[in-house]
Amino acid sequence: MALHPFDLDLAKHVDSALAAYLADRRALGERMERSFTEAVDGLTDFVLSGGKRVRPTFAWWGWRAAGGDPDQESAGRVLTAVSSLELIQACALIHDDLMDASETRRGRPTIHVQFARRHRENSWLSSPEQFGLAAAVLIGDVALAWADDMLFAAGLPTDALQRLSLPWRDMRTEMLAGQYLDVLTQARGDASADAALRIDRLKTAAYTVERPLHMGAAIGGGSAELIEGLRAFGRDIGVAFQLRDDLLGVFGDPAVTGKPAGDDLREGKRTLLVALGVEHGADALEGALGRPDLGDAEVDVVREQLVAVGAVDACERRITELTESALRALEAAPVADPAVTERLAGLAVSATKRTS
Amino acid sequence: MALHPFDLDLAKHVDSALAAYLADRRALGERMERSFTEAVDGLTDFVLSGGKRVRPTFAWWGWRAAGGDPDQESAGRVLTAVSSLELIQACALIHDDLMDASETRRGRPTIHVQFARRHRENSWLSSPEQFGLAAAVLIGDVALAWADDMLFAAGLPTDALQRLSLPWRDMRTEMLAGQYLDVLTQARGDASADAALRIDRLKTAAYTVERPLHMGAAIGGGSAELIEGLRAFGRDIGVAFQLRDDLLGVFGDPAVTGKPAGDDLREGKRTLLVALGVEHGADALEGALGRPDLGDAEVDVVREQLVAVGAVDACERRITELTESALRALEAAPVADPAVTERLAGLAVSATKRTS
Repeated sequence: MALHPFDLDLAKHVDSALAAYLADRRALGERMERSFTEAVDGLTDFVLSGGKRVRPTFAWWGWRAAGGDPDQESAGRVLTAVSSLELIQACALIHDDLMDASETRRGRPTIHVQFARRHRENSWLSSPEQFGLAAAVLIGDVALAWADDMLFAAGLPTDALQRLSLPWRDMRTEMLAGQYLDVLTQARGDASADAALRIDRLKTAAYTVERPLHMGAAIGGGSAELIEGLRAFGRDIGVAFQLRDDLLGVFGDPAVTGKPAGDDLREGKRTLLVALGVEHGADALEGALGRPDLGDAEVDVVREQLVAVGAVDACERRITELTESALRALEAAPVADPAVTERLAGLAVSATKRTS
Repeated sequence: MALHPFDLDLAKHVDSALAAYLADRRALGERMERSFTEAVDGLTDFVLSGGKRVRPTFAWWGWRAAGGDPDQESAGRVLTAVSSLELIQACALIHDDLMDASETRRGRPTIHVQFARRHRENSWLSSPEQFGLAAAVLIGDVALAWADDMLFAAGLPTDALQRLSLPWRDMRTEMLAGQYLDVLTQARGDASADAALRIDRLKTAAYTVERPLHMGAAIGGGSAELIEGLRAFGRDIGVAFQLRDDLLGVFGDPAVTGKPAGDDLREGKRTLLVALGVEHGADALEGALGRPDLGDAEVDVVREQLVAVGAVDACERRITELTESALRALEAAPVADPAVTERLAGLAVSATKRTS
């Protein structure tokens, strides 16, 4: 199989599709109400300011696995359709930052912080924070609504849209159920490995990997056997991906991850790594989790304990096991072309061995 | 034309369609994650606890205007499709209550207040308010995503879905653009009649009346001429509907509206009524708007001034003019059946002469 420019530089093409769609929506929004362009610009900056485009990538390769041919004219429409996943993700992140009261994302102020600042700079009436909240709620809503619009306006054939509707529907609900469980788990202070794993399965495995693969394969008209194989692969890789994220949230290099070292600890994230740490007796975790003022020295103590009690090894072992079982599922799946299998295996490895 | 049970008792049938859909989604949600049912139950209670079903009603009669026959088997699918508008409205209200920090809606605690209370009652960790915020954001998101799912799963024929996609898309964006403009206008303290009218045109005229009619007519395959006529009717009735709402927000009987007298003043709503009052010199408005502690005696002073300066008369006159021009547009539109025209005219009158 010769690789197509879409295959080789997918993230760039996803960016272009998003930029084109958002420019078109901006023009529509401007005709409705000029001031709305501020909200659209806030969303556009957010969407185009980075992100690994993980979900469109898995969806694209799901389509390729079902025999989708990037040389066909329809490939551009598939690219647009899978790019719409980034708008769901924009909603998830913008609302998540608001719910977590996070100040920064990818080194920039979060949407609610940006709009509160705009309020303050203009000396507007009432509370800047409440204005920032309202803007973040609405801009996230716009992203969620436009994700649907972008998908359904991509120009896919009717039968593909029909096949897509189930994974598309379930994926959005899984994402929101995962977010709700995440918020609830933190409120309850539930530090169990079970809760962490349930969140990982919904938010990362299902929403980030399994369903995008499912969507892509559904667009391509893949067989039930192929879809089941890709989903099994996606479920395991998704959890492994999240475990890598857990490790990077505590041990990652700030220069590479773009987040302050140990930020997951300050935010009190109840990850599987943390749960394993608690189970294995890393007692420094108790006093560290959820403390915004946690110093670097304290972060170091937690890190050392997580290594010493074997929680890090346990996580790494689990990542290895999950990656192996995922690759077995992939090998057994009736993927259209061995080069696609190879690419998916490569994605699996890079998702679970990454440093950022 | 003989009226069908759907015609005669539309709100009840909309309630049933929503109850059935939400029960089905609850079962799906429960399979994904048991705790998610708390969020689904919060949404279900909210959706089924009242509301006039204005948007499904206009959409239904738009379909009837295009010749839609309630005796046909497809009528049940149309009913499900138009009922999905109530889920968009649930998102709008749940998020609006959060953005306005409103404590009650229809005499019950708002979603963020309910979930903050649940947090407090369970003595969970961290801030009850932040938990309430997160729940309201996510439950609103669920409603917005499920509105799409409900519409696309209603079983409408492909060509109807295709025709629907434009008004459906524009309606959601108009609603969100209107919400953003509303928030921005309040922040800026822009008390102009122009700003108030722009908000009314987006939030009420377009989102509440014009687009639902458009959607219904599009489902029924109505001609461009019919759609244009219904939209012109809807634009004027929509603004008139909002002006009636403005008047009820200040002068309405709390026992009938379910809201404390003068609540719009306390919330500082920048309505066309308020703009006209300011223009005409009702100087008590200045000190009253946006004061949560505004007493009943102060509300009475504002009311008397609004009457004395002629703002109330001006609003009433405008309602009359808009209703008349709307009815002219309706008379000129090629509606399938005179009985449908009559029903739409009746809806127009009840929307603009109502007391709650």
